[in-house]
Amino acid sequence: MEFNIRKSTPQDMPAVLELIQELATFEKEPDAVIIAAEDLKRDGFGENPAFICFVAEVDGEIQGMALCYFRYSTWKGKTIHLEDLVIREDMRQQGLGKALYTRVIEFAKEQGVKRTEWVVLDWNKPARDFYSRSGATVFEDWCTVQMDETAMERFLKNSQ
Amino acid sequence: MEFNIRKSTPQDMPAVLELIQELATFEKEPDAVIIAAEDLKRDGFGENPAFICFVAEVDGEIQGMALCYFRYSTWKGKTIHLEDLVIREDMRQQGLGKALYTRVIEFAKEQGVKRTEWVVLDWNKPARDFYSRSGATVFEDWCTVQMDETAMERFLKNSQ
Repeated sequence: MEFNIRKSTPQDMPAVLELIQELATFEKEPDAVIIAAEDLKRDGFGENPAFICFVAEVDGEIQGMALCYFRYSTWKGKTIHLEDLVIREDMRQQGLGKALYTRVIEFAKEQGVKRTEWVVLDWNKPARDFYSRSGATVFEDWCTVQMDETAMERFLKNSQ
Repeated sequence: MEFNIRKSTPQDMPAVLELIQELATFEKEPDAVIIAAEDLKRDGFGENPAFICFVAEVDGEIQGMALCYFRYSTWKGKTIHLEDLVIREDMRQQGLGKALYTRVIEFAKEQGVKRTEWVVLDWNKPARDFYSRSGATVFEDWCTVQMDETAMERFLKNSQ
C-alpha cells in the first residue's frame, strides 16, 4: 500500500483528534479525552509548539499519527517523548505504524537527543514485543504517578 | 529549621548537579549522569527553557531541588512533569521536600495545567506512600520504554 509520512498541519488536527479518541477507547478510557481540535491547533504550532505531530496519509486521508515532544533528563539532557502512536484499526499491519515509529526516531536523531522514551500498558504484549525487537528497553520497575487538577487544588488547600 | 524556596538561577546549577548525582546514586545508577553544569545552565534559562528548577536554601546553601517541565497529554493538554525532587541526605525529614513538592504543585496550578505527573521506583515505598497520602494516584500498569542513542542509530540503520 502506498502512503505518505509528513509533519502535520493545523488543518490535520480534527483527524488527529479522531485517532486520539480511538486510542483512548482501545486503552479502556473512552471518556478521558477532554481536549478539542482547537486546543491541538493552538498548542502544536507557531513559535514554541508544545508538541510535534507526524501523520500517515493514504489517498489524501489521515490513517495514522505519532505525536511527540521534548522532555528533559537530568542525567542525559534533552530527550524525545513519544506520547501517542495510533493507526486506524482497519489500516493496521500494512507498515504505517513502523513508518511513523521510524520517523519519530529519525526526528530524535535529527534533534541530537540522547534518548527516545514512551510508555506502554503492561498487558499490551504485541506492542511490548515490537518495541523490544526494535532495540528499545521495557522497564517494569517504574510506576507512573499522577495528580489531577482536583487533587492538586485539594492538596494546596490542605497545605495552607 | 528555617529555609527558603525559590526559583533557581544559572549560578545554582553546580549545586543542583551535585543533587542530581546524589539521586542517581540512591537509584543505583551512579554512572548514569553524563550531563554537566554548563548543559543545565544553557538548557534551563533564557527565552525557551527546557525545564524549571526550584531550590531549597538553608543559610545560603542549596540543600534540595525540584526540577520540572511541561509535557503534553493528548487527552488533557499541557501538563507538568516533575523529573527530580532531591533533598541532601542529612537534611531530610525537616520539611524541605514537602515544601518543594508543594511549590511544584503551586506552579502547576499557576500554569493552569490539568495534571502533574512523575514516576517512582516501585520499591521506594516511603515515596509511594507519601504521594498517595498527598492525593496522587500511583499506576502500576504502565511500563517505561526507552531507546538510547546507540539503539536509535542501530534501528535507523537496520530500517534503511
